[in-house]
Amino acid sequence: MADKPLILITNDDGITSKGIRRLVELMKELGEVMVVAPNSPQSGMGHAITIGETIRLYENDIFEGALAYECSGTPADCIKLAKHHLLSDRVPDLVVSGVNHGSNTSVNVLYSGTMSAAIEAAIEGLPAIGYSVCDYDHDAEMEHCTEHISLIARKVLETGMPHGMALNVNFPKHVNGEEIRGIKVCRQAEAKWKEEFDQRIDPQGVPYFWLTGKFINQDDNPDTDEWAIKNHFTSVVPCGYDLTHHSSLEDLRNWF
Amino acid sequence: MADKPLILITNDDGITSKGIRRLVELMKELGEVMVVAPNSPQSGMGHAITIGETIRLYENDIFEGALAYECSGTPADCIKLAKHHLLSDRVPDLVVSGVNHGSNTSVNVLYSGTMSAAIEAAIEGLPAIGYSVCDYDHDAEMEHCTEHISLIARKVLETGMPHGMALNVNFPKHVNGEEIRGIKVCRQAEAKWKEEFDQRIDPQGVPYFWLTGKFINQDDNPDTDEWAIKNHFTSVVPCGYDLTHHSSLEDLRNWF
Repeated sequence: MADKPLILITNDDGITSKGIRRLVELMKELGEVMVVAPNSPQSGMGHAITIGETIRLYENDIFEGALAYECSGTPADCIKLAKHHLLSDRVPDLVVSGVNHGSNTSVNVLYSGTMSAAIEAAIEGLPAIGYSVCDYDHDAEMEHCTEHISLIARKVLETGMPHGMALNVNFPKHVNGEEIRGIKVCRQAEAKWKEEFDQRIDPQGVPYFWLTGKFINQDDNPDTDEWAIKNHFTSVVPCGYDLTHHSSLEDLRNWF
Repeated sequence: MADKPLILITNDDGITSKGIRRLVELMKELGEVMVVAPNSPQSGMGHAITIGETIRLYENDIFEGALAYECSGTPADCIKLAKHHLLSDRVPDLVVSGVNHGSNTSVNVLYSGTMSAAIEAAIEGLPAIGYSVCDYDHDAEMEHCTEHISLIARKVLETGMPHGMALNVNFPKHVNGEEIRGIKVCRQAEAKWKEEFDQRIDPQGVPYFWLTGKFINQDDNPDTDEWAIKNHFTSVVPCGYDLTHHSSLEDLRNWF
């Protein structure tokens, strides 16, 4: 057991989702697995952390052959708890998050709990990968992704990763009779959401809203993740966490 | 009224906090003000959005001379509701978020609801500024920041901002008899949190945790926001939302 790499797994769809269960199975082939994942869905949680409220953490035996904990906090909380509390004397060789049910390409990376967990791991200096399949279905098909999931994880375990980087891996939705055409390393496409708030009236006569929206891709360049997915490739975007708009620094210095 | 710029205001400490009340007063001197802010504290919410739960939005008259709405959602939700629902026929000339009670320098920008609201506005193509004072106190002193708050907002209103950029402005904590030495345009410092989970036992005998931690600055370079704050300057970091680790793209293409 001692020679096996330690792989920490989390997600944002919750510890019982199909995506994390498949990921656990695949990672058990590559190493010793530890799961720390939210006890409820946390989609759209972004890089939220739990401040001003308490966090619960319970051991759970739902995964055969893998130590698992369910957590009341966010995906980023799960990484922090694993690193600083549960694993204080060991360092994971790899952190994987997902498999997310739904796309995390383009600006979706900012809203994504799955990718925020991977980026939290990168801040901790741990090699990390977030996996997503572009299919929001609770029962999303993911067998077409498994070869690339293992290949990319194996590659990171072998090669390591530059400090402060996490991979954002997206898979196209399954199409009958169509195989994924390959892996494209790409940049995050420029896109946004055109929100359409669905206003309803509750039984007490008081209005409330559902957030709904339409994804608008503004960037069809072949070097983007959106292009890769649209053309049935697996997209791999290396992500950092430096938000500085470096190219504007010089201009801005003339302002003040 | 028609010639006055429209300024949209939000924050993450909630609509009743001292910081947003001060910001509303200052912005009223520069334009027509509209407030859409959370009805409860949302610190550490990052770029979370409300999916799978409903959102409430109520008009509120707590600010004299300013239209205001309190919202049950996150800071990013507030921007989305303002842009796509409340203001569907008008475009704000400026979005300001804060004044946050506590530092949003360095990696804190990722956890910050205040800055995520500003970045959400940048995704919408709106000029945006997040303001924070490095003092977590509920009653944080902010009079020493007001001159720079107005100066920076006025500058953005006059000059505009490159598409997809938001300013992350942090002010040092008030020190008696010491004035802020000036404004430094800088990059986000490399830092992280060393978390210390405070484990306690509830009255039912079940354990729970509080997230606490120590901020570790790993980057003392004079071009960073951490340096600026430590040396009693106002820090201004231009922020984007492209997480792509561009310098690694070429290397990574050789992997697959």
